[in-house]
Amino acid sequence: MGKSVLIINGPNLNMLGKREPGIYGHTTLKDIEGRCQEHAKKTGLTVSFMQSNHEGDMVDAIQQAAQSNDGIIINAAAYTHTSVALMDALKAVGLPCIEVHLSNVFSREAFRHKSYISFAATGVICGFGAKGYELALDAIADIFEQ
Amino acid sequence: MGKSVLIINGPNLNMLGKREPGIYGHTTLKDIEGRCQEHAKKTGLTVSFMQSNHEGDMVDAIQQAAQSNDGIIINAAAYTHTSVALMDALKAVGLPCIEVHLSNVFSREAFRHKSYISFAATGVICGFGAKGYELALDAIADIFEQ
Amino acid sequence: MGKSVLIINGPNLNMLGKREPGIYGHTTLKDIEGRCQEHAKKTGLTVSFMQSNHEGDMVDAIQQAAQSNDGIIINAAAYTHTSVALMDALKAVGLPCIEVHLSNVFSREAFRHKSYISFAATGVICGFGAKGYELALDAIADIFEQ
Amino acid sequence: MGKSVLIINGPNLNMLGKREPGIYGHTTLKDIEGRCQEHAKKTGLTVSFMQSNHEGDMVDAIQQAAQSNDGIIINAAAYTHTSVALMDALKAVGLPCIEVHLSNVFSREAFRHKSYISFAATGVICGFGAKGYELALDAIADIFEQ
Amino acid sequence: MGKSVLIINGPNLNMLGKREPGIYGHTTLKDIEGRCQEHAKKTGLTVSFMQSNHEGDMVDAIQQAAQSNDGIIINAAAYTHTSVALMDALKAVGLPCIEVHLSNVFSREAFRHKSYISFAATGVICGFGAKGYELALDAIADIFEQ
Amino acid sequence: MGKSVLIINGPNLNMLGKREPGIYGHTTLKDIEGRCQEHAKKTGLTVSFMQSNHEGDMVDAIQQAAQSNDGIIINAAAYTHTSVALMDALKAVGLPCIEVHLSNVFSREAFRHKSYISFAATGVICGFGAKGYELALDAIADIFEQ
Amino acid sequence: MGKSVLIINGPNLNMLGKREPGIYGHTTLKDIEGRCQEHAKKTGLTVSFMQSNHEGDMVDAIQQAAQSNDGIIINAAAYTHTSVALMDALKAVGLPCIEVHLSNVFSREAFRHKSYISFAATGVICGFGAKGYELALDAIADIFEQ
Amino acid sequence: MGKSVLIINGPNLNMLGKREPGIYGHTTLKDIEGRCQEHAKKTGLTVSFMQSNHEGDMVDAIQQAAQSNDGIIINAAAYTHTSVALMDALKAVGLPCIEVHLSNVFSREAFRHKSYISFAATGVICGFGAKGYELALDAIADIFEQ
Amino acid sequence: MGKSVLIINGPNLNMLGKREPGIYGHTTLKDIEGRCQEHAKKTGLTVSFMQSNHEGDMVDAIQQAAQSNDGIIINAAAYTHTSVALMDALKAVGLPCIEVHLSNVFSREAFRHKSYISFAATGVICGFGAKGYELALDAIADIFEQ
Amino acid sequence: MGKSVLIINGPNLNMLGKREPGIYGHTTLKDIEGRCQEHAKKTGLTVSFMQSNHEGDMVDAIQQAAQSNDGIIINAAAYTHTSVALMDALKAVGLPCIEVHLSNVFSREAFRHKSYISFAATGVICGFGAKGYELALDAIADIFEQ
Amino acid sequence: MGKSVLIINGPNLNMLGKREPGIYGHTTLKDIEGRCQEHAKKTGLTVSFMQSNHEGDMVDAIQQAAQSNDGIIINAAAYTHTSVALMDALKAVGLPCIEVHLSNVFSREAFRHKSYISFAATGVICGFGAKGYELALDAIADIFEQ
Amino acid sequence: MGKSVLIINGPNLNMLGKREPGIYGHTTLKDIEGRCQEHAKKTGLTVSFMQSNHEGDMVDAIQQAAQSNDGIIINAAAYTHTSVALMDALKAVGLPCIEVHLSNVFSREAFRHKSYISFAATGVICGFGAKGYELALDAIADIFEQ
Repeated sequence: MGKSVLIINGPNLNMLGKREPGIYGHTTLKDIEGRCQEHAKKTGLTVSFMQSNHEGDMVDAIQQAAQSNDGIIINAAAYTHTSVALMDALKAVGLPCIEVHLSNVFSREAFRHKSYISFAATGVICGFGAKGYELALDAIADIFEQ
Repeated sequence: MGKSVLIINGPNLNMLGKREPGIYGHTTLKDIEGRCQEHAKKTGLTVSFMQSNHEGDMVDAIQQAAQSNDGIIINAAAYTHTSVALMDALKAVGLPCIEVHLSNVFSREAFRHKSYISFAATGVICGFGAKGYELALDAIADIFEQ
Repeated sequence: MGKSVLIINGPNLNMLGKREPGIYGHTTLKDIEGRCQEHAKKTGLTVSFMQSNHEGDMVDAIQQAAQSNDGIIINAAAYTHTSVALMDALKAVGLPCIEVHLSNVFSREAFRHKSYISFAATGVICGFGAKGYELALDAIADIFEQ
Repeated sequence: MGKSVLIINGPNLNMLGKREPGIYGHTTLKDIEGRCQEHAKKTGLTVSFMQSNHEGDMVDAIQQAAQSNDGIIINAAAYTHTSVALMDALKAVGLPCIEVHLSNVFSREAFRHKSYISFAATGVICGFGAKGYELALDAIADIFEQ
Repeated sequence: MGKSVLIINGPNLNMLGKREPGIYGHTTLKDIEGRCQEHAKKTGLTVSFMQSNHEGDMVDAIQQAAQSNDGIIINAAAYTHTSVALMDALKAVGLPCIEVHLSNVFSREAFRHKSYISFAATGVICGFGAKGYELALDAIADIFEQ
Repeated sequence: MGKSVLIINGPNLNMLGKREPGIYGHTTLKDIEGRCQEHAKKTGLTVSFMQSNHEGDMVDAIQQAAQSNDGIIINAAAYTHTSVALMDALKAVGLPCIEVHLSNVFSREAFRHKSYISFAATGVICGFGAKGYELALDAIADIFEQ
Repeated sequence: MGKSVLIINGPNLNMLGKREPGIYGHTTLKDIEGRCQEHAKKTGLTVSFMQSNHEGDMVDAIQQAAQSNDGIIINAAAYTHTSVALMDALKAVGLPCIEVHLSNVFSREAFRHKSYISFAATGVICGFGAKGYELALDAIADIFEQ
Repeated sequence: MGKSVLIINGPNLNMLGKREPGIYGHTTLKDIEGRCQEHAKKTGLTVSFMQSNHEGDMVDAIQQAAQSNDGIIINAAAYTHTSVALMDALKAVGLPCIEVHLSNVFSREAFRHKSYISFAATGVICGFGAKGYELALDAIADIFEQ
Repeated sequence: MGKSVLIINGPNLNMLGKREPGIYGHTTLKDIEGRCQEHAKKTGLTVSFMQSNHEGDMVDAIQQAAQSNDGIIINAAAYTHTSVALMDALKAVGLPCIEVHLSNVFSREAFRHKSYISFAATGVICGFGAKGYELALDAIADIFEQ
Repeated sequence: MGKSVLIINGPNLNMLGKREPGIYGHTTLKDIEGRCQEHAKKTGLTVSFMQSNHEGDMVDAIQQAAQSNDGIIINAAAYTHTSVALMDALKAVGLPCIEVHLSNVFSREAFRHKSYISFAATGVICGFGAKGYELALDAIADIFEQ
Repeated sequence: MGKSVLIINGPNLNMLGKREPGIYGHTTLKDIEGRCQEHAKKTGLTVSFMQSNHEGDMVDAIQQAAQSNDGIIINAAAYTHTSVALMDALKAVGLPCIEVHLSNVFSREAFRHKSYISFAATGVICGFGAKGYELALDAIADIFEQ
Repeated sequence: MGKSVLIINGPNLNMLGKREPGIYGHTTLKDIEGRCQEHAKKTGLTVSFMQSNHEGDMVDAIQQAAQSNDGIIINAAAYTHTSVALMDALKAVGLPCIEVHLSNVFSREAFRHKSYISFAATGVICGFGAKGYELALDAIADIFEQ
């Protein structure tokens, strides 16, 4: 059976596509999950998907992934820039980890240029919207094959 | 019927008036809620009041306000200075938002001069103790009338 | 008879509403003074109102307030961010002082995040336009009552 | 009866000894709790022990300690460096508080040199692994005796 | 009739050529005014010329230019580096504005590299002594023609 | 016929796989080009591939891409962190642009955290070795389809 | 006849001894002037004394000193830390100049450690209250004798 | 015969007017060269004009100017902010040098406020578009006449 | 026979308890030495105790400890924050080393937050007064046992 | 009998007047001591004078002054900017202390603007050469009289 | 046959001795090459010598040295302070490398204190003019012998 | 007779080769002195050699060199980065001075990149181990010959 990947989504990503579609588009996190499930099948991966506004829940989820998953894809949203705890959790479990962002965070406000997640991630993919999750699945599949 | 305002109180504000009244005074958060309810009546507003020590709970509350409320008054306490997630939540829901602090945070320690909340707030009121909540209610009523 | 409050307005505030109404609106400083006088009457306060483009004149006015007034409301505009002299003057006279800004200065350019006035002010109210002056009058009335 | 001490452990400390023992050793948090209970008995102290990955839970625990405990020993792990809320909570309850770290955080990455906890703690003990908790118990016993 | 330009000169420029001619040369501000008047005639412009050591007077002058002039040339001297008020005034009146300096301020002390005036000016001319004023007149004439 | 993509490789990337394979692996830039050509065929894209140690040559190549290509994938290597000229060139031609790095630059030395390229790129992919180029081709194909 | 010294006093020094004598003592600026006149007589100097809250007035005074005085003693108070214009004026007139402060500014708030005046002053005397003016007179007399 | 001036244009200036005329206007570098040639004739100067995207070529050109030219006008574009080599070259040849920028670089992104060229240039002219080159020719003619 | 520990005390610690007992308490360094000797006996350690105001003497002592001692406890006082030489000496001898401070240096002035000693120490104990030395002896005994 | 003052001179001051008189003048430290002895007699003070290149010796001297002297005048030379130990010693003995420098250190290199001594000194006198010591004696006499 | 060393010279070094001999002396780069060839013979080394104003050419030269040379001596001039690409190239080829500067760059402008070359060089020799190249040849010969 | 050179060695260099030869090698400072004496003979120089862990002793030695030596070679070790006193001493005696370091300090920790010695030294040689002292002797011989 295929490898299992946990996809973790951070604070406010549950709001995607629900408000101000003129600005943020109509794609919801549900849609992204759908695309991920579909794309995972093609690449022979199993995908679990979670979202939380709570830093602690995300730390819990990462720790549990050590039992149940082979890799992690994480869009930590706002916690990317402030959470040493998520970085420590990712380092502690030691699973392959890919950092994803919908927008190109490095061309936004200065405080979004710093990522604690990056210190624990194999690689980063940002700026491609929902497509970024599919690319991350391809990338982690490639890592599993090495 | 009048507009509805959610008043969000951050970490440790539940301790107000409970310890060291010599320093912090005898006013409890309960008292402040009472004053807010009373003051809201005069101005024809409905008020919901919540407090949490959990950043994630506060993000959840802001998101739910998008369904149930017309405006937000927030005293984010310690999270004012560290939470990008609260700022993102406030921007995502897009409701009129007023930042309140009991003390004048800009005359305290340097790390309290930075407010992520301010980037998402219409205005800031600080330094007036419990009275600041009443002023915020007046201010948000004024915004609703524009 | 009621307490007397001096409202000090700093550089360029005399231009309010006179140019580019599309951007700055049609409210002039005269209008704000009118609203303050009217609002003061309701709260039993006497209000004096002055504006100057000169830092020194504003220092003079603060010092004279020590003789003639019971409190100060100050919108120091550009001098907020550069004038140690105004801060020293406010500290020297020791009257209750409230800092007002029409816009939310903490969400504008970085050099506007620093306020010398805040170190001498009881509280800060910003982002509510002309309404902010009325809130400041309510706040200072509340301080007088304590 | 003896004084009661709450020992608070922050994010990811529940992972101790569970993964990569080659790097982190085989000591689990359970083992540390055992050593603490045993050591506390010798010094006539009662010990409660909690761990959480949630900043808010840790704030809650500190607040409740004000009712149930005489002192706090805290290893805030990653939150040491980012949590103003924990610092505010510790200051609000005003109990004797000792900061513990397993490793010498001051010789690690630069962002680990800043501790908000230190501003609220009587003292700091770091770099001695599980032994540090025993030293902290001795230290807090010494404080109780003063 | 031609466009009218106000040329504003800041603190200590009235001392030009009066002391230490060995260092600063013999050209006085009077001489520069003469050259400007002459040069303005050739380009069909009318020129008003003022100097003040008072930041407030310069703000006043800029505001009055909104009534009487079509453009501003400003050598704010020391206030270049410290005056947010002048920047705000220039932005408020919205006239074409050219910043002039006698010396190349960008090759002098570090605190002279920062110019608040630049944020409100169309362009900057520095390092050409009195000739810089003539170039500024040519430049502003060119702007008027667009 | 398919869209055409220029893949630009910066300084020292021509050394890949040629020295110290124990450290850098055996993959050469030639190998990467081969993988890109093959992968492009699958996705219906045409790929041009260039490498230079010269910042100026890379600027020239970007400018010429405005005539001959529909998109750019760029691994600017060391120039990522120092070249305003490459950023300006990418902004001037305005083509969709993806930034690629073989390693996760955000977990390396501090001076590698700053990328001028990011300010002009739609998205960033880093940390996946040669696979990153394939992901970038998928990502740019996705952009072309929008 | 003796040399003539201008003693310039900056903003808020006219408030000395007038308010809060418990904190600032009972010595007024008038008293200091008296002590200076008396002390000057002993050392054969003539003293002029001025105070202003206006930076521009102080610049004017310095410039006029070039005609009427042989040296300057200046306590620029708040303008010490913000006024490039005063520094430029002092450098332009080129008279011997001594900087005086009543308190030891170098042990107060960080923003009071920077003095623009120092770059133009021969020497600095601070921390000795009114006595500092007498010391400055002695010091400038010593300079005149060299 | 007249003095000879080399006009050096840096990276991406060859793109002027070729793309996105809505933003950058229709003026090409060719047009600017034409205006310069015409304007030079009026002032009796000979003009050579070069553009390169290569920092090294620009250094070469500056060095060769030491043999063939009497002065240099340089718009170093992106290299303005990063090239110590251009600064060193300009200092080494020691010709009169004027720095030109089409836009007011001092009101753009922070990294464009630093100019290495300024440390080697007599003066700076920025913000006047193509007209800036004509002003620079007038300015350098004025320098030649001194 | 037991292990031997050198306890090094830095500048001004010889003043402890001798002046201003109201502030610093009555405990002298002699008292601390006594407590250390007594405590060492209990744990089977031999203790040497030295104090110096001279950085060089402390470096000498550390070097000699390499011959005569098994571990070092150091309260470097003021040299903690300024001495690279002490850090280098501690690293050179390579003995187990524990850093002690009487007060919690991390809650005092900012320049006391930086410790060069920490880079060479196994662990740090601060804020417990004389008790801290006893804790350090326990800690080093624990290290010897490993 | 009169009060006794210890005058402490730091590193390299013993070189005064011995080398390069063209630059440093011909006044030796011996001459300064002579002037101090003579001046002290006039003011009824007893003066001890010491110089050392050793930071530790200076700390020792300050500590011994607590037994033998009523006040300290200190020119710490290079140690002014680097020695926390001297500051701590001065604070520990708590005698009136005056900081002297021959030159105006605040107009020299940036690293000479920071003085640890200032945090422990009543006042500072700098820039007056040997005369500064006499002024310091007058100032300390004035302090003794208060 | 002897080891072969490539000596790389950066931008503007070809100007040495050609202009302003009063300042830079009469030694040309040709002279330095001559001295190097002669000195190399004595030490049994073969020397190649190149100079370029182009960063890219210097990167090319370093890469080719991997085939043809046993060591590199580099005076990167201005690129020392800005070129990550040269550092990466030197690290990639992994040859022994010595950094040379004619002047003591560490006593010049602050931006010349940073050297990217140093991170890849075995050692640095600066401040000895042309002699520095001979010392570098001796040093590299010594390294070859190890 | 030949020129005389004082070679000064700073703190902890007496430990060279005595501990952990696996890391630091077997060369002792004695060995280096031997090589220096031998090398000095070849070049006709006389060499004195001293080492101290005391900053003050090193200042003394530099001052005495003004009487007895023609030049100084200094490896100030840790004091390189912290001692303004050594810099001042070297400047005061004005002898030719060469700074030596065994390792390449510029590729080590950031706080080792700053050298106060460099501001007083003719040149710097670092990274060549004991060989660096021989190179320094050659360099200073070359300076004596100029």
